[in-house]
Amino acid sequence: LHSKLPEVGTTIFTVMSALAAEVGAVNLGQGFPDFDCDPALVEAVYQAMRAGHNQYPPMPGVPALRSAVASKIEALHGRKYSADSEITITAGATQAILTAILACVRPGDEVIVLEPCYDSYAPNIALAGGTVVRVPLTPGSFRPDFDKIAAALSPRTRALLINSPHNPSATVWSAQDMLTLQELLAPTDVLLISDEVYEHMVFDGVEHQSVARFAGLAARAFIVSSFGKTFHVTGWKVGTVAAPAALTAEFRKVHQFNVFTVNTPMQHGLASYLQNPAPYLQLPAFYQAKRDLFRAGLAGSRLRLLPCAGSYFQCVDISAVSDLGEADFCQWLTREIGVAAIPLSAFYGKGFDQRVVRFCFAKKDATLHLALQRLRKL
Amino acid sequence: LHSKLPEVGTTIFTVMSALAAEVGAVNLGQGFPDFDCDPALVEAVYQAMRAGHNQYPPMPGVPALRSAVASKIEALHGRKYSADSEITITAGATQAILTAILACVRPGDEVIVLEPCYDSYAPNIALAGGTVVRVPLTPGSFRPDFDKIAAALSPRTRALLINSPHNPSATVWSAQDMLTLQELLAPTDVLLISDEVYEHMVFDGVEHQSVARFAGLAARAFIVSSFGKTFHVTGWKVGTVAAPAALTAEFRKVHQFNVFTVNTPMQHGLASYLQNPAPYLQLPAFYQAKRDLFRAGLAGSRLRLLPCAGSYFQCVDISAVSDLGEADFCQWLTREIGVAAIPLSAFYGKGFDQRVVRFCFAKKDATLHLALQRLRKL
Ligand SMILES: CSCCC(=O)C(=O)O
Ligand SMILES: CSCCC(=O)C(=O)O
Repeated sequence: LHSKLPEVGTTIFTVMSALAAEVGAVNLGQGFPDFDCDPALVEAVYQAMRAGHNQYPPMPGVPALRSAVASKIEALHGRKYSADSEITITAGATQAILTAILACVRPGDEVIVLEPCYDSYAPNIALAGGTVVRVPLTPGSFRPDFDKIAAALSPRTRALLINSPHNPSATVWSAQDMLTLQELLAPTDVLLISDEVYEHMVFDGVEHQSVARFAGLAARAFIVSSFGKTFHVTGWKVGTVAAPAALTAEFRKVHQFNVFTVNTPMQHGLASYLQNPAPYLQLPAFYQAKRDLFRAGLAGSRLRLLPCAGSYFQCVDISAVSDLGEADFCQWLTREIGVAAIPLSAFYGKGFDQRVVRFCFAKKDATLHLALQRLRKL
Repeated sequence: LHSKLPEVGTTIFTVMSALAAEVGAVNLGQGFPDFDCDPALVEAVYQAMRAGHNQYPPMPGVPALRSAVASKIEALHGRKYSADSEITITAGATQAILTAILACVRPGDEVIVLEPCYDSYAPNIALAGGTVVRVPLTPGSFRPDFDKIAAALSPRTRALLINSPHNPSATVWSAQDMLTLQELLAPTDVLLISDEVYEHMVFDGVEHQSVARFAGLAARAFIVSSFGKTFHVTGWKVGTVAAPAALTAEFRKVHQFNVFTVNTPMQHGLASYLQNPAPYLQLPAFYQAKRDLFRAGLAGSRLRLLPCAGSYFQCVDISAVSDLGEADFCQWLTREIGVAAIPLSAFYGKGFDQRVVRFCFAKKDATLHLALQRLRKL
């Protein structure tokens, strides 16, 4: 069988999690919490199952969940999305992004991604027959370079993928960044896919600038989010897409022939749990404390901390610690020091090595303390 | 936005379910049970959530579930699949089929479907850039016409999609059918996608002839099944794909960038529930009783019953009852008689009207009695 994705192997997240398990390392590689979700959320799903919510939900999602999502976006960002025609529930954010790309991108179309970026974007574009156009974020700062984005736009540009708070660099776009992008795209009909799965992990009092806040961007955007990230249930695989009705209509055509629909009891449980905004409003403080604990623990070490404005990732420069390349360093760190990390090169098309690795701090404090104790040996 | 699926609207299943709800009709349209699953299955999922199985499972699925699936296939069909490298857990059968197609089909490739067929197949092929080649099942009997299949094979044929027990016609392929297909495909490298979601709904003592039983077919096949259908949880969206390691490797490359992975607690719950084969071994008798109840209730009517050898669908010829076309008849039946059905034309590319409609009998006996009482007015 002639592979359609010849360059794709097992994802780095799977590889490092497996290695961490094998050698008994603290797994700060793959992004997922090692603590559990709120038991009230489990009870809400259980009640939904016992109430018989076990058959197909409506194709775009359970109405109560779509309404709750629309209300949340309106409360946080001031834009009304129609629960009927503009919100769709997906089997996680990854499925949402592939579905949006399959709905819009044709062979020959170009799609711009800003590198480093999540490892599904490029294969998603390839599966739609599109051409991946890689624009680097500014080296060192990982800020968007709008001149480079402008230069990459062409008549064949079909879509641009952005992601703030950013995985892996932990940068967050400002309102001014969004306005600059809005101006840049105004004369074009380029679509926007905005991966906002870390929307509730923004620190130091800064607000998440959702694309939903910017009319000129929202009008052309699929805004993707994830309950897995927000409610500590990465294994439940429930996400959302908000998009104007015309885009949603095309999205749903593909969605209904991809997963058709999404786990019913989880949707009902989430709909009832979302009635209380406290869990997501408390998330910035919750994760900021973990970030601060982790950074404080590394402050005296020779791992150089990069800024962390959002997400649950902390990047460090390893150049004062080791001569190894990033990927070899992560292997060595996992095996010899007992802490798994992800090399940033995994987020680039060409394996660029800038001596930076990513840790995930979505872990119990005890886990972080254990990891720090080991990392301080460096 | 220029649609990539211009011919696709809302699926007929969604349309008819919505109409049935609106007018208070008994919904024998969309295929799903109106009774609940075994409470033990709900408890198993609840225990998994409480045990903290709420984060990402391994990408191809929870190992215990993959092992249980491999054991089940070996027990039923005598073929060993490796749980590690040949079984993948999917977000339902529809996602499995799209993923298999995206993994194999390139622009210009032809994929043969046997009409009538499930409505996702053709758009799935289109999304991969492939060409849909529609071969009709034998009119009247809905048996495979191997001469027509042979005539449709070309050097560009990449894959063939088959489905037994068959939705919508309720026919079941015999071992001889499978052997004939095996011989036909032997000189080719055509891949097979075998949709076996109704595998446990085969009646009158006949056995389901899985492609897994035929070495020459299994070697080229993705075999797709669905826990939703088997355990009365269509809303849980958990399915499986069994395929030789080389095919599974390509399948997983796409799968990991589509849904990445599938709901963790549902997988754990299903893994524990699968330890007991009784629920699926009892399914033929369970559904045969419903089939018999439904057929007996219509025996005196002018709706002509077609044979029903498998699946949870019963087709009837409406020509002695109405002059309306199938689609109009289904609308009329839903609104005026209070029973929703699906026109068979929905399963054809060109809206061919043979005056046949499909009822789903996966309903409580009380629901079937109420529907029969109304249908006897015809
Ligand atoms: C989908 S597996 C990886 C989770 C994640 O988002 C990450 O580690 O970057
Ligand atoms: C996925 S919705 C329809 C369920 C079904 O398989 C059918 O009714 O044919």
